[in-house]
Amino acid sequence: MSQLLNSTPKQDGFRMPAEYEKHAGCWMLWPERPDNWRNGAKPAQRAFTSVAAAISQFEPVTVGVNQGQFQNARALLPSNIRVVEISSNDAWIRDTGPTFVINDMGEIRGIDWEFNAWGGLNGGLYPVWDQDNLVAQKVLEIEQVDRYKASFILEGGAIHVDGQGTALVTEECLLNPNRNPSLSHGEIEQTLTDYLNVRQIIWLGRGVYLDETDGHIDNLACFIRPGVVALTWTDNQHDPQYDISCDALERLKQATDAQGRRLEVHKIHQPGPLYITQAESAGVDSSASSHPRQVGQRMAASYVNFYIANGGIVVPIFDDPYDVAALQQLQALFPERKVIGVPGREILLGGGNIHCITQQQPAP
Amino acid sequence: MSQLLNSTPKQDGFRMPAEYEKHAGCWMLWPERPDNWRNGAKPAQRAFTSVAAAISQFEPVTVGVNQGQFQNARALLPSNIRVVEISSNDAWIRDTGPTFVINDMGEIRGIDWEFNAWGGLNGGLYPVWDQDNLVAQKVLEIEQVDRYKASFILEGGAIHVDGQGTALVTEECLLNPNRNPSLSHGEIEQTLTDYLNVRQIIWLGRGVYLDETDGHIDNLACFIRPGVVALTWTDNQHDPQYDISCDALERLKQATDAQGRRLEVHKIHQPGPLYITQAESAGVDSSASSHPRQVGQRMAASYVNFYIANGGIVVPIFDDPYDVAALQQLQALFPERKVIGVPGREILLGGGNIHCITQQQPAP
Repeated sequence: MSQLLNSTPKQDGFRMPAEYEKHAGCWMLWPERPDNWRNGAKPAQRAFTSVAAAISQFEPVTVGVNQGQFQNARALLPSNIRVVEISSNDAWIRDTGPTFVINDMGEIRGIDWEFNAWGGLNGGLYPVWDQDNLVAQKVLEIEQVDRYKASFILEGGAIHVDGQGTALVTEECLLNPNRNPSLSHGEIEQTLTDYLNVRQIIWLGRGVYLDETDGHIDNLACFIRPGVVALTWTDNQHDPQYDISCDALERLKQATDAQGRRLEVHKIHQPGPLYITQAESAGVDSSASSHPRQVGQRMAASYVNFYIANGGIVVPIFDDPYDVAALQQLQALFPERKVIGVPGREILLGGGNIHCITQQQPAP
Repeated sequence: MSQLLNSTPKQDGFRMPAEYEKHAGCWMLWPERPDNWRNGAKPAQRAFTSVAAAISQFEPVTVGVNQGQFQNARALLPSNIRVVEISSNDAWIRDTGPTFVINDMGEIRGIDWEFNAWGGLNGGLYPVWDQDNLVAQKVLEIEQVDRYKASFILEGGAIHVDGQGTALVTEECLLNPNRNPSLSHGEIEQTLTDYLNVRQIIWLGRGVYLDETDGHIDNLACFIRPGVVALTWTDNQHDPQYDISCDALERLKQATDAQGRRLEVHKIHQPGPLYITQAESAGVDSSASSHPRQVGQRMAASYVNFYIANGGIVVPIFDDPYDVAALQQLQALFPERKVIGVPGREILLGGGNIHCITQQQPAP
């Protein structure tokens, strides 16, 4: 059974583990909406299938799908991937799925955050998110994992943890008045402390340039292991991303983590810049109430938006000159894991990348 | 993972276990359609909740629910019951769910029969059954149980087995031209033999009077244990059910099971007869394409439509003078299980009863 809990993970001795800790498996959702994904989402469905197949080399993968796409998803996904019905408004389970927590006995529970489609009616990406807001609960029901219901609006892509007491977030997202406007900075820190069970929160400023999530950390920077961070970077001082990355680097170098360590920071040079083409834009259904995908629009491309699987790293690549360097650098940073590049442009066109469409479930 | 198998259970050494063998749990679906269930299905939802709660005293229960009813089902069902999203056209998982099979090593697999809403466009109960026909596959995906896809049209309520090589069916249903018209009697027997892995099929004639499933066996008769059968009965020779039950009794007395045994038959006197009231009929949405629920219509009420759980028997009762006798008789027949009566009229109004809305999953 999945019981609703009225306490917090910290009170109960549970903490959010780092992504590089052992997984039971990975959750994904199936892309479908034609006002976000071009050509009826068919290119995106192939891209998601490649990501699912890559991750399934390392750990079990379950894909949640809306009713009308069940048979198509089941037909396209490899048979070693579990397909279950989970309705969603779009396919970003990093942001709509549960944040799993564990305790020292290896028990797992899940946090069900409030979700408002990255800003609700104040800059959010679509106006109806009722099904997205049930995804976490449905995952926990299937798995029979007990559930903390937080009244706090948060997406999983807005937080990274090192598993040793440190969280990494951005001010652009966490302090955005379109998320939790009634809470002070201190109250937001307290909420993160209570639910993630961390002791130190490192605040970066803005996220990746033009990131429509309001600057999710998972597109900007992540922990490679405790004390070591990867940061998306550009050497081009004329690129608006330059100042963002410099500021993030400066803050990371000033920071100490929960263990009192200084952080080692590795710059991963961004691809591109990448822009939406005429053909890509033309394939997206017009809709007054979803985020426009206009020709020439710059996309928030970043190699840091990778997924850490058991024994593997699944990284978006873009047929870009920087692909090889990113893959080599990540392989050096994760010598004990196999780094796999998967084409990420079709996911990027929808507003995110591989980390955004995945959610790890820790091993008990 | 749930692999699609191209063989048959018999070829692979799997057999359908009897319902009185050990279960891992029970599956149900959530009633919703207002053109079958009165008053927006609210009375039926309460009745299904009572059934689920009763069964969950004995074994884990999972309820599959359409998207729009997820939150309501989760709110009404006790928290020890798992609620998952499984779309359906109506809530008869006995007929739309998988028929589980086991082998001598305790491995389990599932049969995914073809389903045509009890007769398709030739006497079936509603014209669209696309979601019903995916229920079995979705259950097996969630459970990661391998799947036999049978091209044969069959409902789980049309078959009973004793777990020792014998199946019990009715001619009215299995030989109905609205199920598998291109197959001969012999080919139908062969299909049952191949999938259920039985050696002896006992054919009864007609099912319960006015049973809209075309005479499902599970409303007429069932195995109590190997060699022992319960049969719905009436002593009223003027009741059309009398001839049906007499014929069934005669055939049962003539039969031998797969072990060469004669059968011991216990008559369970039916309730009623029970008729749809004005108020009940008035609560059902009018629809040209669903089965009418007209005032004065006689319902196919039977105590034999009970569910055998681990250590329990969950029996429909009708606030009827025969209730007490049925419960006492079943308690005597199942001395090692606790017999629980649950009000079944609201389920009966929709066209079936407790056995029809449940599907056991055997223990590995």
